Amino acid sequence: MIENVLTKIDANLNASLDRLFEFLRIPSISAQSTHAADCRLAAAWARDQLAGMGFSARLSETAGLPGVIAQHHKAGPAAPHVLFYGHYDVQPADPLSLWETDPFNPQLVDGPRGKRITARGAVDDKGQVVSFLEACRAHIETTGTLPVRLTILLEGEEECGSPSLAELLRNERDTLAADFVLVADTNMWNAETPAITVSLRGLAGVELTIKGPSRDLHSGLFGGIALNPINVLTKILGSLHDDHGRIQIPGFYDGIAPLPDALAQSWASLGFSAEQFLTEVGLTTPAGEQDQPPLAQLWARPTADINGIYGGYQGEGGKTVIAAEATAKLTFRLVPGQNPSAIIPAFERFVRDQLPPDARAYFKHAGAAPGFLVALDAPFMRAAQAALAAEFGKPAALIGGGGSIPVVAAFKTHLGLDTILAGFGLDDDRIHSPNEKFELTCFHRGTRAHARLLSAFAG
Amino acid sequence: MIENVLTKIDANLNASLDRLFEFLRIPSISAQSTHAADCRLAAAWARDQLAGMGFSARLSETAGLPGVIAQHHKAGPAAPHVLFYGHYDVQPADPLSLWETDPFNPQLVDGPRGKRITARGAVDDKGQVVSFLEACRAHIETTGTLPVRLTILLEGEEECGSPSLAELLRNERDTLAADFVLVADTNMWNAETPAITVSLRGLAGVELTIKGPSRDLHSGLFGGIALNPINVLTKILGSLHDDHGRIQIPGFYDGIAPLPDALAQSWASLGFSAEQFLTEVGLTTPAGEQDQPPLAQLWARPTADINGIYGGYQGEGGKTVIAAEATAKLTFRLVPGQNPSAIIPAFERFVRDQLPPDARAYFKHAGAAPGFLVALDAPFMRAAQAALAAEFGKPAALIGGGGSIPVVAAFKTHLGLDTILAGFGLDDDRIHSPNEKFELTCFHRGTRAHARLLSAFAG
Repeated sequence: MIENVLTKIDANLNASLDRLFEFLRIPSISAQSTHAADCRLAAAWARDQLAGMGFSARLSETAGLPGVIAQHHKAGPAAPHVLFYGHYDVQPADPLSLWETDPFNPQLVDGPRGKRITARGAVDDKGQVVSFLEACRAHIETTGTLPVRLTILLEGEEECGSPSLAELLRNERDTLAADFVLVADTNMWNAETPAITVSLRGLAGVELTIKGPSRDLHSGLFGGIALNPINVLTKILGSLHDDHGRIQIPGFYDGIAPLPDALAQSWASLGFSAEQFLTEVGLTTPAGEQDQPPLAQLWARPTADINGIYGGYQGEGGKTVIAAEATAKLTFRLVPGQNPSAIIPAFERFVRDQLPPDARAYFKHAGAAPGFLVALDAPFMRAAQAALAAEFGKPAALIGGGGSIPVVAAFKTHLGLDTILAGFGLDDDRIHSPNEKFELTCFHRGTRAHARLLSAFAG
Repeated sequence: MIENVLTKIDANLNASLDRLFEFLRIPSISAQSTHAADCRLAAAWARDQLAGMGFSARLSETAGLPGVIAQHHKAGPAAPHVLFYGHYDVQPADPLSLWETDPFNPQLVDGPRGKRITARGAVDDKGQVVSFLEACRAHIETTGTLPVRLTILLEGEEECGSPSLAELLRNERDTLAADFVLVADTNMWNAETPAITVSLRGLAGVELTIKGPSRDLHSGLFGGIALNPINVLTKILGSLHDDHGRIQIPGFYDGIAPLPDALAQSWASLGFSAEQFLTEVGLTTPAGEQDQPPLAQLWARPTADINGIYGGYQGEGGKTVIAAEATAKLTFRLVPGQNPSAIIPAFERFVRDQLPPDARAYFKHAGAAPGFLVALDAPFMRAAQAALAAEFGKPAALIGGGGSIPVVAAFKTHLGLDTILAGFGLDDDRIHSPNEKFELTCFHRGTRAHARLLSAFAG
């Protein structure tokens, strides 16, 4: 039976790509309000695709961008109920000058692993979403139905902190009452080895603006006597880490539990090479806490990264100015045990304690989500491992993830559901960067793997 | 005789303003190459004005923007030869959103001291240049000539570090061989009290870029293990000052001599109120070296100011990115005794000594000029003081200046000339900031004072 579905997927590949490219051409950047209409276009596109496949599909409005909700329950009440989660929004594409192809005109280009799909959202998350949808399409076209009861939720604000997700989950609580969640927004261990992500870091974000003089000042007429907000900002943020990479915010590490032995052993067996990992991005030396193994720096330890900074004159040449203000955007990656709602207040105290006279600090909070550690013995974990092993001919690696998928915590909090994270991206896919790509082979085998997962979940 | 000239100036005021407004409408921003043609337009405008007044006037080409050179020597070989210096270029006008009027559509608007001229360059330096030209025009229209031999030099690159000034002075060495230089690019002590600026700070500028990863990275997938160039930049620049405001670059203060007693006493008698000075720009507390008097922080001590900083995501919302690089633009205000050509190399060593593994630092140098202290007993200083006292009814204050006029050092180095700095701006003129203005009364009395100065120099 599954072989017929897989054959259908292979035969449908070009048509599947055409549909993915349609989706990728919509610049659904949720962080930029000028793209709100594009986001709604992307939501409507996904709804219409699902309706065309026989799902009952609709938009679910929120205070922000709508979710897409679709159900296909022909498998009957005895079949397991799977909730699939993905997102239809994408990151901003800037800096545009660094893209080799138009971020919103997807291309198939040659790469060292064969063809690759290049576009903003190619893998994060439109490519992963479409690979799942195409697996469903192949099941339905081959057998007339799906092996499980399936509910699909596509979020529209994943890339801007999911401000409306809690509202969406509360509104749709009854519709989303599944047995567990399948999330396709993660990576394989490498191009040959599938993976299930069993731990994730959380995230807390904040924008800090330091204000000083009431206006920009001439640095000759006022320099020396007048407070310089850029100097203040660098002085405070420059004290975030000590010389050993340890974050200096009081209480920042409170509550962090040691890594479970099983996981520490599993990670040690992965043969992770920090040198190789870093060489691919032009680096050589792990830059985190010096007393932590590289993989722990990546998956099990929290961070404090300045994602953006600006103030004063940024144009060509120079300008002898003391700016009235300067701003930095920061995110903290969090790990299980840290209290996300305590992190930003601790950062605020850390900043205020260092403010010189006349400097004022203003804070804008982004969302906050805790770190995550999956229940390794969860009921559907074994089925998932078997399906991935069948497609790829080797067992899935049980890995950690350095990124944040706040929805995982939200599903636990609001719906009481466990989550299986199985995705088909690769570490070099350049998500959130110029020239994001998805290997064609990953898209194709990901679709096949999703078809097998659906069958495996049915038992 | 001078009374007739002054009467002519009063009668000409509206026509003088019309000419100034023509000049101000030309956006001659020398720091931005897109405005190169506008700069040449401004140079040609000044040349044509001077030619129309009977000067022999021409452009003097350089590797960069041309100087305007004009001579009026009808006073004969026995008359003193004065070299007047000003500049026709202006600062960039951004951020445009903060201007209440178009920076390049000058307006006369009401202010607490009467009418004021608002435009980029209103006072720095087009307004000051035109007030001198109108003084010349009144002399010529009244008496048929000028009381001195006069050579005028207008530079086109003052606001971008004067890269071609040395070339210009070398090329025009014979033409510019005057008895001394009169520079109109400084301020009065207050709206009632004229001033001669007897000390100035020098300037050294540098742009620092820190590079790390070969591309922008996702802060989840790479955060912790990957070097963050913005974090590195803030850590290094955050160490520029200690907690007492003292600059930490080794050797930075080398060679600074104590302030001459006469000047220290003069400054103490000025009744400078740091509180009042700072209150006007929304501040309360002198932010420089804590063991230095406020006026010394402003006029006699060097600074390290970050004028601009940028890196990573600066748009709306957030972006979980580790940027490939981050940049800061810095200027150091220098005082007599410091070696300008040693400052940036010392800063480079200071940065390199703190670079973590994988961080690379790139430096772009701007110009460097030493601090300046005028010979208080210079031959034409007494004539200048008498002329200013006659116009304003009180003696001129002998003040310092926190800004840089590199041309003063250049005139000494290349032509062996001393400089008298007498200008008619006010501290609240917002030069280099949005809403730059020049009080109409300052423009008018400045023109009258220039007419008196020309007569006084003739003896």
